[in-house]
Order: sequence, then C-alpha cells, then structure tokens
Amino acid sequence: MMKRTLARELPEFEGREVTVSGWVHRIRELGAISFVLLRDRSGILQLVYEGKVEYSLESVIQVTGTVGANPKAPGGFEVQAGESSVLAPAAPDLPFQINQDADNTGIESVLDNRMISIRNPKILDIFRLQSSVIRYFQEYMRSQDFTEIKTSKLIGSGTEGGTGLFEVAYFDTSVYLAQSPQFYKQAMVASGLERVFEVGAAYRAEKHDTPRHLNEYVSLDVELAFIEDEHDLMDIESEILKAIFRGIRENEAAILEKYGATVPDDEAVNNIPRITHDEAKKIISMRGGKKVFEINPEGERLICEWAQEEHSVPAVFITVFPRKKRPFYTYPDGLKTRSFDLIFRGLEITTGGRRINEYEMMKETLPKFGMTEEGLGGYIDIFKYGCPPHGGFAIGLERITQKILGLSNVKEASLFPRDRKRIVP
Amino acid sequence: MMKRTLARELPEFEGREVTVSGWVHRIRELGAISFVLLRDRSGILQLVYEGKVEYSLESVIQVTGTVGANPKAPGGFEVQAGESSVLAPAAPDLPFQINQDADNTGIESVLDNRMISIRNPKILDIFRLQSSVIRYFQEYMRSQDFTEIKTSKLIGSGTEGGTGLFEVAYFDTSVYLAQSPQFYKQAMVASGLERVFEVGAAYRAEKHDTPRHLNEYVSLDVELAFIEDEHDLMDIESEILKAIFRGIRENEAAILEKYGATVPDDEAVNNIPRITHDEAKKIISMRGGKKVFEINPEGERLICEWAQEEHSVPAVFITVFPRKKRPFYTYPDGLKTRSFDLIFRGLEITTGGRRINEYEMMKETLPKFGMTEEGLGGYIDIFKYGCPPHGGFAIGLERITQKILGLSNVKEASLFPRDRKRIVP
Repeated sequence: MMKRTLARELPEFEGREVTVSGWVHRIRELGAISFVLLRDRSGILQLVYEGKVEYSLESVIQVTGTVGANPKAPGGFEVQAGESSVLAPAAPDLPFQINQDADNTGIESVLDNRMISIRNPKILDIFRLQSSVIRYFQEYMRSQDFTEIKTSKLIGSGTEGGTGLFEVAYFDTSVYLAQSPQFYKQAMVASGLERVFEVGAAYRAEKHDTPRHLNEYVSLDVELAFIEDEHDLMDIESEILKAIFRGIRENEAAILEKYGATVPDDEAVNNIPRITHDEAKKIISMRGGKKVFEINPEGERLICEWAQEEHSVPAVFITVFPRKKRPFYTYPDGLKTRSFDLIFRGLEITTGGRRINEYEMMKETLPKFGMTEEGLGGYIDIFKYGCPPHGGFAIGLERITQKILGLSNVKEASLFPRDRKRIVP
Repeated sequence: MMKRTLARELPEFEGREVTVSGWVHRIRELGAISFVLLRDRSGILQLVYEGKVEYSLESVIQVTGTVGANPKAPGGFEVQAGESSVLAPAAPDLPFQINQDADNTGIESVLDNRMISIRNPKILDIFRLQSSVIRYFQEYMRSQDFTEIKTSKLIGSGTEGGTGLFEVAYFDTSVYLAQSPQFYKQAMVASGLERVFEVGAAYRAEKHDTPRHLNEYVSLDVELAFIEDEHDLMDIESEILKAIFRGIRENEAAILEKYGATVPDDEAVNNIPRITHDEAKKIISMRGGKKVFEINPEGERLICEWAQEEHSVPAVFITVFPRKKRPFYTYPDGLKTRSFDLIFRGLEITTGGRRINEYEMMKETLPKFGMTEEGLGGYIDIFKYGCPPHGGFAIGLERITQKILGLSNVKEASLFPRDRKRIVP
C-alpha cells in the first residue's frame, strides 16, 4: 500500500514528516501563501504552500510535509507541504459543486450527476450513516441468535398476488424480480433455523413517482418462530431500533449534527404506542378535521404528530389491519389480521405480522385470494410438514435512513436509485 | 414470546422443570418407554415418554418436563416429558428423509425438495456456516475502515462487455441484471470513501450447467484506493481469508467436523504462492503430461495439487493474465494485465486486479473493446474528475462455502439455486 497518513491521524504526528493523499477540496490564496484543503476518507486536512498552487479541484494528489499545530486548521493541525505530486488530475469543468453546501440543489441535479455529486461530503455522509444502519442491524440480529440468509431474487410468481412485478427473460422462460423474500424466510424459519434475517434487494414495478417510493430498495428482513402473537414482533423491532439508534448516536454523532438530526432514545422507543387501524383513523380524522377512510401520507404525518404530543416519540405501531388490506399469508382474526405497520416521522418504514402457519388454514385461504398451491412452487409444503407459529417484518433501509437524517426524498438515501424514469447511472 | 428452553441450555436446568419446543426428529420405542429426539435451532434433545407416542416426524411440539442427566442422551441431559401438545402436525408422507444422512442422496432430489430437504441438519449446517462466512467477512472489512455499500442490480449495460446479461422489462424500456457492482464500487472508491465492500447478488446469463456455475450468486465485493499494485489486493484478500477461516475454525468447529473439513491456518494462507498465468500453464502442462493453452477445471485442480505439495496450501494466486482474457477496465501492462485469480481447492473463487484509473488511458481503451463513453452512463466521469489508483476483487460466497466444506456441487451451497432449468422453489 502507498505510505500514507490520514487526516484524522495528524495529531499523532506533530513535528514529524508525513505523506498524505486525497482529493483537492478547496484552495485559498492569502498573500504569498496558499491553503489547500485535502479530503481523504477520514476527513479534511489543511496543506500550506508557499506561493500559488496550480491544482484543479478534485485532483488526487500526494504530498509529503511536516505536521504543525494550527488552531485555525480543520482538526487543529496542518501540513507544511514539501514534495507534491498529482496522482490523478481532474478536469476543470466539474458538473457539480463538491465543496459547497448542496442543501439547496435540486434532487434531479444531485441524481443526474450522481457519479460526481456523491463526492460532496454531506451527501456522502448519508451513505456512511446507512452503512452503520446495516451494521447495527446485523450485529443486533446476530446477538439474538438470528442466522443471516441470502435468497434468490428470481422467482416464479409474486408473494403479494402477482401485481407489481418486473419480468425477467430467463433463457426460454420468464421469471420475476422478488418483491420480498417472504416465502423463503418462512421456509428458513421452518427449516429449523427458527430465526433468520436478510439484507437484500426488493423490487416493486409500481408506476408511482413520489418522494417516498423506489422501484428497487434494500429490505432489512426479519422472521422468527415460536412467537405468541404480533406483539412479540413489535417488541423485537423496538429492540432493533434501539440498537440502531444507539449505535448511530454513539458512532455517527458528527453526521447527525451536520444534518441537525437526532434519533429517539431507548425510553422514547419503549413509548411507541400500539394502536389499531380503526383508532388511528379516528385520531387522524380528529386532527385533520375530516373523516378519513384510508391512511394516506398526510394521515401518517398526523398520526406521528399525535404520537409526539401524547407519547413523546414520533412513531406509532398501527395494528389490527383489515384482512383485505394485507397479503394472503397474514394470520387472520375474523375480518381483521394479526399484523402491523410502523410509522416513523410520518412514513411507513415497516410492514409485518404473524403469518398463517397452519396447513388447513393455508389451504382454505389460497382460493379466497385467487391462488393455487401449484402456483406457489412448494410453498405449501412448508406448512404441510410442521411449521411453528411465526411472523416477521421488514424495514426499508432507504426509508429509515431518510427519516433518521430528515431527508425530504427517499431517493436521496439510495446510492443509485431506480424509478420509472431513472435507470442511470 | 413462548416460554421456552433450548436444547443447548438443558445442562443449566438439571432437576428443574422446563418447557421445550421444536420438531420431532426421531422416535424410538424401547419396551414401555419411548424416546423422542426433538430438534430446535440450538441442537437436538431427548424427551422420554412412558408408553407409546403418536407424533408424526417433523411435527412441531411443545413439552413441559423435568431435566435429568443421562450420559447416553445427546448433550448428556434429557427431559422426562409431562404435558405435551402439538403446535403444528406434519403430514406423514415426508418427501425427503430429514433424520438420515443425505450424503448419498442425489443433488436433484435435494434441490427439487428444497423446502423440506433444508431441514436435514447436515444440509442446513451449510447455511449456518455460510452465514458465518458473511459475518467474518463483514467484520474484517469494517475493522479495516471499509464502508458497506448497496448498489443497484438494474443496469443499462454490462460491465463485462454486454454478453451474458439477463434482460428485465422495465416500464417502457429494458434494463439488465448486474453481473457485478464493478462500476458502482469504483464510483464509491472515487467518491472519497476509498474503501468499500458489498454483499450482493450477481447474475450471469450463461447456459452452462456445471457443478461450478450458478446463474445467480452472492458476490463478496471489495474495492480500495491508494494501492501500489495488485499485490496489495492479494495481501488484503489473504487477510480476509485468514479472518474468515479463523472465525469458522473457532466458532463452527462442529460443522467442520461433521463434514470432515478443515480450513487453512494463518501460516498456510501466508504461503499461498503467486505465480504468473504463464508459469501456471507450464506447471499444469508438466503435471498433466500434455501442453495446455487454457487453464480449465482440470488445470485448476492440478495447480492446487502442486501448491499443496510445494507450499503446503491448496491455493494459488495466478497473476499477469493476458489482456484479452480480462475486462476492459483492467489495468494493462503491455499485452498483460495487473490482475489475478485465486484458485482454492481446485476452483476459482476470486477474480480481481488493479483498474484503470487514468482518464486518458480509459478513453483510449474503450474503443479497443468496442465500447463508447456514452454507453457507460456516466462511468467515464469517475476518471475525468480525479480517481486515485485503485483495484479490487470479488469472492463468490457459494464457491468459498462449497470449498470450505468440500461439497461436490456449488448448487449445494446456494439456498435456492438458479440454473438454466431450475427456477423453483
């Protein structure tokens, strides 16, 4: 590897010679001296040059020099630049400002120039934080004896009933991109693993183009057996949220601060109310001043506002959804189901519930939803041969990232988002 | 959650009453007593009943009883069964033997009945081990300051030149399933993250149906900047392998033992020879007794045999591939390239190399490979605006799992494998 000291390591090298490398972030001339801010993966450091420098912004350079203290420099130290070389020059016509606040830049410009706009440190921080969300999710799941699974994203038919699927030409036939690993995570619960999780892509061929939808997203999926009811699932999700929020609060404080964001503490997560779908509609109707029959985005916003006021947490578990609003595999309870959504800061970030685990019940259910055993490729066998009571849920990675940081559009939280019109880069 | 003690916890409860639950794995009647082996996620425990029991195999039951020591029982303890109930009965016509050694069962039968065959403990252990491979990979990458990324699997064109792609109908147009996250991981290296990894699906629309190919697999992708040359990459891969092997040796010893498998220790990994493609062909020609012009599967077997004899490790890094054998983005060195493969136990588990990072070189290269800047959706901008020297590689998750355990077919190491004919379950 190239000999190299990172920006964050400078304090350890005061008075000593180091070699640093990174991207030219900003240049400022002050009389006979030039200051170059150099960006590397750990942060930004200041280089001090005698006279003018000729670098173009974003060029990758390597510089040897001596570390000195300077309270005005980022991190309190700077490097008196000696031997310098350009490892990779940058063309001068940058299509996106890397070293400026991009808060007022439209999302179309950010995404059209994604290959370059991603260099903007504040934009890049979204994905550093997202990486941590994945990490704390996985670490918590593993600590609770969950096994990570990787299941096929090419399936013969849809889990939600066949709508909203992308078709893939597969040799002499067709398959579809999976909307969720639903059948597979149930199979793996019944396999004896009992507790599984998956971090994987999910696809929805829906034509909406809204700030809350992606056609391809990352799903943090959880499924576990030997539950009593759906409240066990909400308990587990609460523990997951605490673990993610705790990890981020402790290790990504600088990013939260940059975004002016906070995450709920353990007590707040414990306070998340659990109300029925009917109760939620009533509360929304009251606060919105007109009777609602569906919970739309405005309703999700109102119900979180209510939760913040009444329970000091901007999140609500909505339970007891009507059967006709849930997929066929949801455990029924008369005309209702043992299912839930989690709404966080005005956005649904989770759908989950107990699943049908009884063979006879599954056999009765399929025709009611227009489905056949044969069409589900072995799915029915999971139940025929002994499947314990179980359930699960999924957290949308981009949505939770968006809501942690307060981003206005979920596409900002997807590295290379796909929507109806966007397929590059 | 249901009140419950796991099989592995029995020793802590000697003389006390517990409630256990799981799958009926085996039933043995011995005069007036019946022994039921009960399987849960932690292992197998023995239940002792007075008289006959009527359970069908694989039924899920819940049993309360008292724990007693019995040196002949699995784990040294058993439960005198009291109150018992069936949580989910299993039909008696099991399509696959769960409680027998499946070593002599054909892979077609295993995969055709995947929803049920996966319950066989030895088969399921493949995926417990695979989960650990992912875990130790991620933990090592994170310890080395790599950021986990999640990139789109729907792309406008192929990274390897447009062949072997699955086409997806995407609203009014077409996209393809990504063969690798190549362009995206390069973009994220150049973004300033410098060091990235991804665990994600990769697709190859190749018609081969061999024991070493999958049309959908999980790729453990690594890419990093500020390397000197491709040897830095092989160094990193060696450290990754040590971390994975160490984690497995320490925490999955029981699975290794069940498969009669071992993994190379640190010293062995350090010993992995690095030989050129030309040298490899010479060694293979000598050992095979005939001159070879390509390294085929038999050649990969022979070269690992050589490495075992000469370097006490069944693995070889093959370097300096000819340019015509590598994708366009590989860093050239005359007619050769700064690239490598890792062959482990007779199977290529990694392809990697330094990448072209210089804008002018990239512009000259594209037309030689019949490609255009416009066709690559912003890819060229990565290099136009300052991209450090970098490279990377990918480890096939199913292949390394296969070779760790000594499985004869890579499909055994994929939960729901996809090949030309197999699209269910």
